[in-house]
Amino acid sequence: MLYRDVLEYKTKTQEKRDITKDVQELVDKYGVKDGLCNIFIQSTTAGLMINEDDRMLMADIEKLLNQLAPAERLYQHPENAHSHIRAAIFKNNLNIPIADGKLLLGTWQNIMLWEFDVKERTRTVVVTIIGG
Amino acid sequence: MLYRDVLEYKTKTQEKRDITKDVQELVDKYGVKDGLCNIFIQSTTAGLMINEDDRMLMADIEKLLNQLAPAERLYQHPENAHSHIRAAIFKNNLNIPIADGKLLLGTWQNIMLWEFDVKERTRTVVVTIIGG
Amino acid sequence: MLYRDVLEYKTKTQEKRDITKDVQELVDKYGVKDGLCNIFIQSTTAGLMINEDDRMLMADIEKLLNQLAPAERLYQHPENAHSHIRAAIFKNNLNIPIADGKLLLGTWQNIMLWEFDVKERTRTVVVTIIGG
Repeated sequence: MLYRDVLEYKTKTQEKRDITKDVQELVDKYGVKDGLCNIFIQSTTAGLMINEDDRMLMADIEKLLNQLAPAERLYQHPENAHSHIRAAIFKNNLNIPIADGKLLLGTWQNIMLWEFDVKERTRTVVVTIIGG
Repeated sequence: MLYRDVLEYKTKTQEKRDITKDVQELVDKYGVKDGLCNIFIQSTTAGLMINEDDRMLMADIEKLLNQLAPAERLYQHPENAHSHIRAAIFKNNLNIPIADGKLLLGTWQNIMLWEFDVKERTRTVVVTIIGG
Repeated sequence: MLYRDVLEYKTKTQEKRDITKDVQELVDKYGVKDGLCNIFIQSTTAGLMINEDDRMLMADIEKLLNQLAPAERLYQHPENAHSHIRAAIFKNNLNIPIADGKLLLGTWQNIMLWEFDVKERTRTVVVTIIGG
């Protein structure tokens, strides 16, 4: 069976949000015990990452992104090129196994949504679950 | 149901090609209304990305790749190490939900194939669609 | 049909291990002829990559990682921040088509597990195969 649902988030610039619980709630909602979960963000200036939800680590990663694609650099693409470039370095789709009704994440793995854009946005995350 | 098909592209070095329409045509061909689409490039010196198909943005991203893995640097791997490294930074597989027969892409999301190799190549992109 | 199995690896710091054969053996074990294979590593300080299994190329890529996230830099996250950052740059899930009972990899494509942590670890790789 295939189930699909949508999560929506109002985000602030540079926000990092742990969406693990929301995705797990969809797995619960459809009662899938064994399967695969696809998480897809419909954005070119926000991204997804699986890693530890730790403020200090997020700051370390942001420092690297600031170094690779600084906001204040002059780019050809107008306005928010650095947001697009950061999204391109990140992922926009994740695929996670489900066993016994749980996302099979490691102890320190969290699903993080990162907002890279320069203003408030509403982000749509499509969750597709294959299994039964 | 599972459907699989292949797209082939003759590419030039540094070419960036929007393949969104080709993938959508395969979704149409197999008449899949709801499902997941896996796009897999069988290459170690070319990659896939979902982002805006904008020439200026592509130039900005290429500038970053030139900085991270310059073509003229001396590498241990002979000939085209920088092509491999760029492919490793990019993605070689993408997984996109399908709803109502359409790839569920955001407004600015395009599926881009980037050629990183130093000569003309023929690239094979395997498209697998799960759904019905 | 959906099949799931687990591969376990004892790794050393900075180890790069080709796990292609192990994954193919699981495809053989379950007798899947056509489908999709999801490979998911339950780690935040190790990663997956598809590229050529060549020692010189691995050294070139490691040099870039050393430059982007040096081990000796001072980070906010204690102890192994550079390991997390490298894992975030890499992938933790891969999705590969299967045809005629074989992972549809290109000639030079190998599935590589990279250990980024600062000590010996045991790594769990979950392999989920959809198909028949």
